[in-house]
Amino acid sequence: MIEFITDNFLLESDAAARLYHEYAESLPIIDYHCHLPVVDVDANRQFANLTQIWLEGDHYKWRAMRACGIDEKFITGDAADWQKFQKWAEVTPKTLCNPLYHWTHLELKRPFGIADRLLSPETAKSIWDDANSKLLLPEFSARGIMQQMNVELVCTTDDPVDSLESHKNIAADNSFKIKILPTFRPDKAVQFANPAPLGGSIDEQSIKKYNAYIDRLGEVSGITIRSLDDLFAALKNRHDFFHEHGCRLSDHGFEIFQYSNFESDAALDSRFVKLRNGKVIDETDAIHLQSAILHYIAVLNNDRNWTMQLHIGALRNNNTRFFNRIGADTGFDSIADGNFAKPLSRFLDQLDRGNNLPKTIIYNLNPTANEMLATMLGNFQDGKTPGKMQLGSGWWFLDQKNGMENQIDTVSNLGLLSQFVGMLTDSRSFLSYTRHEYFRRILANKLGNEIKTGSLPNDFNLIGNMVKNICYHNAVNYFSFD
Amino acid sequence: MIEFITDNFLLESDAAARLYHEYAESLPIIDYHCHLPVVDVDANRQFANLTQIWLEGDHYKWRAMRACGIDEKFITGDAADWQKFQKWAEVTPKTLCNPLYHWTHLELKRPFGIADRLLSPETAKSIWDDANSKLLLPEFSARGIMQQMNVELVCTTDDPVDSLESHKNIAADNSFKIKILPTFRPDKAVQFANPAPLGGSIDEQSIKKYNAYIDRLGEVSGITIRSLDDLFAALKNRHDFFHEHGCRLSDHGFEIFQYSNFESDAALDSRFVKLRNGKVIDETDAIHLQSAILHYIAVLNNDRNWTMQLHIGALRNNNTRFFNRIGADTGFDSIADGNFAKPLSRFLDQLDRGNNLPKTIIYNLNPTANEMLATMLGNFQDGKTPGKMQLGSGWWFLDQKNGMENQIDTVSNLGLLSQFVGMLTDSRSFLSYTRHEYFRRILANKLGNEIKTGSLPNDFNLIGNMVKNICYHNAVNYFSFD
Amino acid sequence: MIEFITDNFLLESDAAARLYHEYAESLPIIDYHCHLPVVDVDANRQFANLTQIWLEGDHYKWRAMRACGIDEKFITGDAADWQKFQKWAEVTPKTLCNPLYHWTHLELKRPFGIADRLLSPETAKSIWDDANSKLLLPEFSARGIMQQMNVELVCTTDDPVDSLESHKNIAADNSFKIKILPTFRPDKAVQFANPAPLGGSIDEQSIKKYNAYIDRLGEVSGITIRSLDDLFAALKNRHDFFHEHGCRLSDHGFEIFQYSNFESDAALDSRFVKLRNGKVIDETDAIHLQSAILHYIAVLNNDRNWTMQLHIGALRNNNTRFFNRIGADTGFDSIADGNFAKPLSRFLDQLDRGNNLPKTIIYNLNPTANEMLATMLGNFQDGKTPGKMQLGSGWWFLDQKNGMENQIDTVSNLGLLSQFVGMLTDSRSFLSYTRHEYFRRILANKLGNEIKTGSLPNDFNLIGNMVKNICYHNAVNYFSFD
Repeated sequence: MIEFITDNFLLESDAAARLYHEYAESLPIIDYHCHLPVVDVDANRQFANLTQIWLEGDHYKWRAMRACGIDEKFITGDAADWQKFQKWAEVTPKTLCNPLYHWTHLELKRPFGIADRLLSPETAKSIWDDANSKLLLPEFSARGIMQQMNVELVCTTDDPVDSLESHKNIAADNSFKIKILPTFRPDKAVQFANPAPLGGSIDEQSIKKYNAYIDRLGEVSGITIRSLDDLFAALKNRHDFFHEHGCRLSDHGFEIFQYSNFESDAALDSRFVKLRNGKVIDETDAIHLQSAILHYIAVLNNDRNWTMQLHIGALRNNNTRFFNRIGADTGFDSIADGNFAKPLSRFLDQLDRGNNLPKTIIYNLNPTANEMLATMLGNFQDGKTPGKMQLGSGWWFLDQKNGMENQIDTVSNLGLLSQFVGMLTDSRSFLSYTRHEYFRRILANKLGNEIKTGSLPNDFNLIGNMVKNICYHNAVNYFSFD
Repeated sequence: MIEFITDNFLLESDAAARLYHEYAESLPIIDYHCHLPVVDVDANRQFANLTQIWLEGDHYKWRAMRACGIDEKFITGDAADWQKFQKWAEVTPKTLCNPLYHWTHLELKRPFGIADRLLSPETAKSIWDDANSKLLLPEFSARGIMQQMNVELVCTTDDPVDSLESHKNIAADNSFKIKILPTFRPDKAVQFANPAPLGGSIDEQSIKKYNAYIDRLGEVSGITIRSLDDLFAALKNRHDFFHEHGCRLSDHGFEIFQYSNFESDAALDSRFVKLRNGKVIDETDAIHLQSAILHYIAVLNNDRNWTMQLHIGALRNNNTRFFNRIGADTGFDSIADGNFAKPLSRFLDQLDRGNNLPKTIIYNLNPTANEMLATMLGNFQDGKTPGKMQLGSGWWFLDQKNGMENQIDTVSNLGLLSQFVGMLTDSRSFLSYTRHEYFRRILANKLGNEIKTGSLPNDFNLIGNMVKNICYHNAVNYFSFD
Repeated sequence: MIEFITDNFLLESDAAARLYHEYAESLPIIDYHCHLPVVDVDANRQFANLTQIWLEGDHYKWRAMRACGIDEKFITGDAADWQKFQKWAEVTPKTLCNPLYHWTHLELKRPFGIADRLLSPETAKSIWDDANSKLLLPEFSARGIMQQMNVELVCTTDDPVDSLESHKNIAADNSFKIKILPTFRPDKAVQFANPAPLGGSIDEQSIKKYNAYIDRLGEVSGITIRSLDDLFAALKNRHDFFHEHGCRLSDHGFEIFQYSNFESDAALDSRFVKLRNGKVIDETDAIHLQSAILHYIAVLNNDRNWTMQLHIGALRNNNTRFFNRIGADTGFDSIADGNFAKPLSRFLDQLDRGNNLPKTIIYNLNPTANEMLATMLGNFQDGKTPGKMQLGSGWWFLDQKNGMENQIDTVSNLGLLSQFVGMLTDSRSFLSYTRHEYFRRILANKLGNEIKTGSLPNDFNLIGNMVKNICYHNAVNYFSFD
């Protein structure tokens, strides 16, 4: 028997093991950014089998399967659940060295308790049976798993037009102690262009789609949106509504961050009216307008002491054939390239000048921007809120050992690791909570190894407390959840 | 005596040594991309001395010598072979920490069997004498060295107008078992601009040169090239001819990858006619036209199940003084910077949409593009051909320990290492086959260390087979050589 | 008691310890680039307390304090020195993993001899008292510290209009053996734009400022500057003057390096005249003109065998609020992004073509340019001056363990480490000389570990001499100080 995920998995020194086991391991999980389907928490979904809970929405696994020559039928197609699982079992050994191999076995160990086998075609059936029998139990429902994994609070990602019905239901259920809070993600109110494979351009079709969304936003907020001020009023209305339901973060996605100083543009409102009348506006005008809307939301965030998250650098929907076949977010996105230090500087500075800069976390997908970003954030630490400006944890493709270590190194060398608010899953799956374990092991390992080599002082109280802060307490203090 | 290249050179753990010696060491070499002078294989050249075989065409060594203040006379000039070697021996200890120091001593050990001395001014004469006496032997001819080094197949790099005479001769010689296959490199048919030091621009001079080449292509293919369709026909003719002689790869070089959707351009053919009439066309039109030609060649590749190689990111001929004195490819090239995620995405997507995307290997010279590229390639894995889209092995300046480790890490984290088709020499020298040994040691070392630290399971069968696949079997399966 | 900065701090192997202690440790310091206030050397300033010598001008510490939520009053404000120190002691443990934590304790150990305590709120008072009592002693004056730290030569950074009075005074004092030489930093004569927060643009205000500076330059050189030739004559006058006072380096700062071939521009002089008349010129013309001025200074450098330093990649003054409150260089600068391989290539090539290329050191702030730069520099190694073109030591945000290791790796793999001219402090503080110790330990550690793993030969004479050259002798030989 090959024991893989041992107690000291990824912990290469005694100091690392001590930091992990004595300081990090038992802390609750604050998962302040994820894409969990809140309806499943509301319904306390019970999953019929491993395929449903593990493969249904996981584009990481889908990409790996495609790269191994597996037909789409067994990925997002109509093959039976067991067939799909078989194919995944076939691919798993081919993911050696990829984070999927670690994640897979971490998740089999916790919560399933399967640690005596590596997933492969030979073990597929026994793992399928063992895991599926567990999935029948109450402690393996959506809520049950979250409780098992010591989750304390989760922030989902939600559209401003969302009614938050599921959030309300969950909050009203006193028997369930884990907080499930919404996050305000107003991308559809900010961006006018088509998604990438159709050109990334602003045209009549994209404007039609934008206006349909704005109409919807008007309906849910009870405000007829004709002018930019109307839009702002509607956004404020929904921001207030989200705040009432515990929301304390906004989230914003960008291919490459663009920004222009809109203050000198007297025609802003007329451009918006033009847009609302279904007319195409040119790119420069669009950036002005988008900058103004983004700035306004940032001001709202700061007024309410929310944290603003920026996700920068995803080039989406590169594969037209699959986009037409199975839609967006199915594993055809990749890392963008491009420069954005100056527009980002101007965005943050304009907010700072007006005393409107909220707490901010920037996640970047292209690791070449790590150093630029970490130092940019340092320009806007304000001497009031500790760790106000944050470089987010390794995101998406960077959410793996090297990526996390690079992010930790960047924050360490160019910022202050001690102020870091730590890990999040960014996941759509109830099985991803071991990502926090993974991060904690990696963090403990890095710091433990530095104690061992003398690069950090041999003071476990000092280093251990920093570990605890990064894994839990900094997030508690930073986000001001109720 | 200082023993440097020991049996366990670069193998830092027992697991690493085991992976290398038991799984990697004895595998034959598939060198699927190199710049070996095929005439030397054809003639089975016997080299008179170490300078001829080692320094004659090696711009890596030349750069190091210039950086140490060695006069050009001793590099590409008219100094005697022994004088040149003396200067190289003087410079060798100054290359400590550079891959040249490793390569030099690897190559002295294999094939020369000199492992008891480090090259330096003190040992220069004895190494010169020992190696030169070996070079007289039949097993040190061009073919002899390849046989000693366990080479099974080599792909040279060839112009579409090449007659492939040497390839034919070699293929006809049944006594020589190593396959020497051509690669189709049609850069001169795709690019209209001058080389970089003259501006990188399209002008009358560059168009004259282009047309002279197209005339030549017309001659060898027996097709008078007046229209774009004529060009396509001529390229197809040569593609067929190369295919008949065993060619299964094309190769394409780019400073920064540019591409534009040419499909909507009704004037494509008239632009080409204009060019053929010696008229300058503007850059936007040129990119349309180049895109169309490149796309056409990609379609040919896919039709024939060839693999398309893209080499992106070399800024060539930076030094005008030396370019005028000793020409191109003499050690004055460097790494370009620039963004190309979007045009590359559009190029691959356009091919994919038409079911025309061939197997593709992208080599990039600027390592900042590693992550962008590895994820971009993932967008076009098609669920049919395992490992269809490949991030190429560390290229040129990146063909060294750090560069290879970074490439392995990138493929591991953002793709699937198990599907990687492995190493190539990219070399002009018959002594470079230890680059495969170097790569295999580095690969075994990385994976062995991960077994040791528990990051990979302690299953030598599992990991060892992956090593064997990467070092040999994946290439055999992927390229579909006859 | 926790001993942190031990004798073998950062030295992870016996080989590393041997390289450091036997070869590097005792060498004198050539600090060929810093921002030390030369008036303090001239006056042989005695510092009243740790705050004055440690916190007064240290924007690294200021940034860390702001990131921990410390009010500006305690940073650059009017709080008492002891209060400021208390705040720094509070922040120090929060800088764990940041270079500040290492630097702080290295500096406490040398020169203060305080190595039995880590700085924290608990130890603040005792460290304050112990260090302050030392600061009363003559060996802790500005000059005393330099002597204690085994400094041999220092190059300050000076404006061409500077009278060099302090340099003259120091040179005239035969009792003080350390050479304090000026560096020629003519940025104000080259750049016409406003600093970044006001837009980075050329406008009437920025031109007025430029002209005021040029008037001043005219005065000190005794040349009325009306034409470009007048400017050149004035610059040459000051260049000569600096040369007479021992200057052997120029230094130039750039956000992103821009350059255009100005030779074909017949209107260069008329543009300069326009500028001198207070008229705004457009950006393209400005780059032509700036290129011409920079080129001229480079020619002067080469004529005098000076070394030209380029610092590329700082995005300055991002925070308008703090810029208006406390001015430039106060901790609100960060890393720029952008491409510059081609303009840099053209700048160096134009100089090289005319045999005017001086010895050059390029420091880059965005580490993504490391590989591009290291290979670009290789294009202009001329086979005459060993190590003529240098990639500078990790600069500013990159002046830390990872940054130095990356720079060493880059130079090793893409250049020649053996030719590297080594470390500098770039500092404004008399306490920064342990940066050389830090670098030497990191260098020895890297090379020692490579001996241990067999990546370098086990030849201490060979490797040790390289270490000595990098830490001292290469700089002596390269710079040609008197």
